Amino acid sequence: MALNEFSLIQRFFTQQRVKNPSTTLGIGDDCALLSIPEGFQLAITTDTMVENVHFFAGTNPEQLGYKLLAVNLSDLASMGAKPLSVSLAITLPSVDEAWLSSFAKGFLNLAEQYSVDLIGGDTTSGPLTLTVQALGLVPKGRGLRRSTAKPGDLIYLTGSLGDAGLGLKIKQGYACFDHESALARFNRPKPQVELGLALVNIANACIDISDGLLADLGHILEQSQVGARLDWELLPLSKAVHSYINETGDWSMPLIAGDDYELCFTISPDKAAMLTIPCTKIGVIEAVPKLRLYKSGQLQSLTSKGYEHFS
Amino acid sequence: MALNEFSLIQRFFTQQRVKNPSTTLGIGDDCALLSIPEGFQLAITTDTMVENVHFFAGTNPEQLGYKLLAVNLSDLASMGAKPLSVSLAITLPSVDEAWLSSFAKGFLNLAEQYSVDLIGGDTTSGPLTLTVQALGLVPKGRGLRRSTAKPGDLIYLTGSLGDAGLGLKIKQGYACFDHESALARFNRPKPQVELGLALVNIANACIDISDGLLADLGHILEQSQVGARLDWELLPLSKAVHSYINETGDWSMPLIAGDDYELCFTISPDKAAMLTIPCTKIGVIEAVPKLRLYKSGQLQSLTSKGYEHFS
Repeated sequence: MALNEFSLIQRFFTQQRVKNPSTTLGIGDDCALLSIPEGFQLAITTDTMVENVHFFAGTNPEQLGYKLLAVNLSDLASMGAKPLSVSLAITLPSVDEAWLSSFAKGFLNLAEQYSVDLIGGDTTSGPLTLTVQALGLVPKGRGLRRSTAKPGDLIYLTGSLGDAGLGLKIKQGYACFDHESALARFNRPKPQVELGLALVNIANACIDISDGLLADLGHILEQSQVGARLDWELLPLSKAVHSYINETGDWSMPLIAGDDYELCFTISPDKAAMLTIPCTKIGVIEAVPKLRLYKSGQLQSLTSKGYEHFS
Repeated sequence: MALNEFSLIQRFFTQQRVKNPSTTLGIGDDCALLSIPEGFQLAITTDTMVENVHFFAGTNPEQLGYKLLAVNLSDLASMGAKPLSVSLAITLPSVDEAWLSSFAKGFLNLAEQYSVDLIGGDTTSGPLTLTVQALGLVPKGRGLRRSTAKPGDLIYLTGSLGDAGLGLKIKQGYACFDHESALARFNRPKPQVELGLALVNIANACIDISDGLLADLGHILEQSQVGARLDWELLPLSKAVHSYINETGDWSMPLIAGDDYELCFTISPDKAAMLTIPCTKIGVIEAVPKLRLYKSGQLQSLTSKGYEHFS
């Protein structure tokens, strides 16, 4: 059965009702209309996922729908923004109703969890490519940026590091005792929205770990024109990741692997006592540029800076 | 030379400076930040263009960059919104610097013409796919919708119809005396932003002609739960389109062809005198559902409703 573009969007991607109070007009017109409450700014982010680049062909479509939205909500979280609404542009080779239904389920379930409205979309035929734009609200002038870390700031990380990287290794054939948990971190990363909101007015700078700690912390350092000291022994690692490192010797994996979607933030030492969220201190911002990584008290040199397209 | 993702965005797509007063934070962080002035709502639209679906392989990249932005600005225009900023997600098979430079030139030149800031982007490797999300401002509650046409409204069209369709036929081999002008309408459609702004507080409903008059006016009729009478003789056709119809007998082309990006709007008869923009009356909204097309006084039946993906 051939569905046309409009019934596709209606059938699979129309939510039961507009949920977010900011959504004045949802899907169905040339534009959606949003009302932004006074005292807030709009935070906007875009991410694209391409088959065989960002996900394996044949990936479970429900997981894919979930993850596509999760990585965008994670960008909002790293800004300290409250999610509002999303647009979804899907390019797919042909109409596969089972695939679309499952994909929409994963996407919309997560959207509903955060009262995020799907306010726009475009469905086109072509190679499988998914683009989301997510919108959120931050109190005026309070958005958490990359460029505002200061020498002397402590560097913290929410959650643990390297579990999604281990999940990817498991998908690629590595045998691991805590299979399920690492795979879940890779397949269904939790966007740390609540933690990001809790860091507004407290943290100085913040980023989410999508491309690996070294690459992402590197953005904070570059944009803030500072450096940092990291201590490998301080990194929060799960038992499974520890065990992977013991077996393989690959101790840099948790620094380089992406997809963890935890938040890395900096905070002035006098505010550290205000932290009420689960997080771990991993280093300190320094005035001298570049990142210095210490392991067993020794300065290490690292070449790879995490995953980059076209690099 | 391999450019990484970040230098790609920086090198080709970083505008000289942030131009729009609403742009608080542009490209370079996890999110951009926008300040929405009081009394306004945000209008949001998304469009994707895929190679071999929406444009021919080998299309001049400068034209492509221009058109990609133009079709999104056209969606804002049909809502009566003033353009503010855009995000651009590019998926491309490999880094072709000449292509990217030319594409960015077409895109950014048009953006600057409308003081539109590029506030976000994602560059990924994969089959050539381009997604834009455009943001604009409308006075609160004044956005022009599809769902608010009323029986008795007059139906108007800006500009002329079928020229882009003729441009496409020329690309496909049709020989035409006014080659250049029809091709320009296909390759470089003008988004009718100023006309859309002029219609706020005057028009009852509005849409832009992207998929063809029948399909797009059809959306107004469905969503407003009304019908319409159109008179073929009233359609504003250029000399070149008249000549095409005389040669081929294909009189339905201007009704079905897409890509004109003119605005079709409805207006109550007592407000028609307030119209100061160049436009043509082509019919009238009626209470009885569906569209009725008259040609030489005869009711016509039309099967195709314009271009739809997957249909």
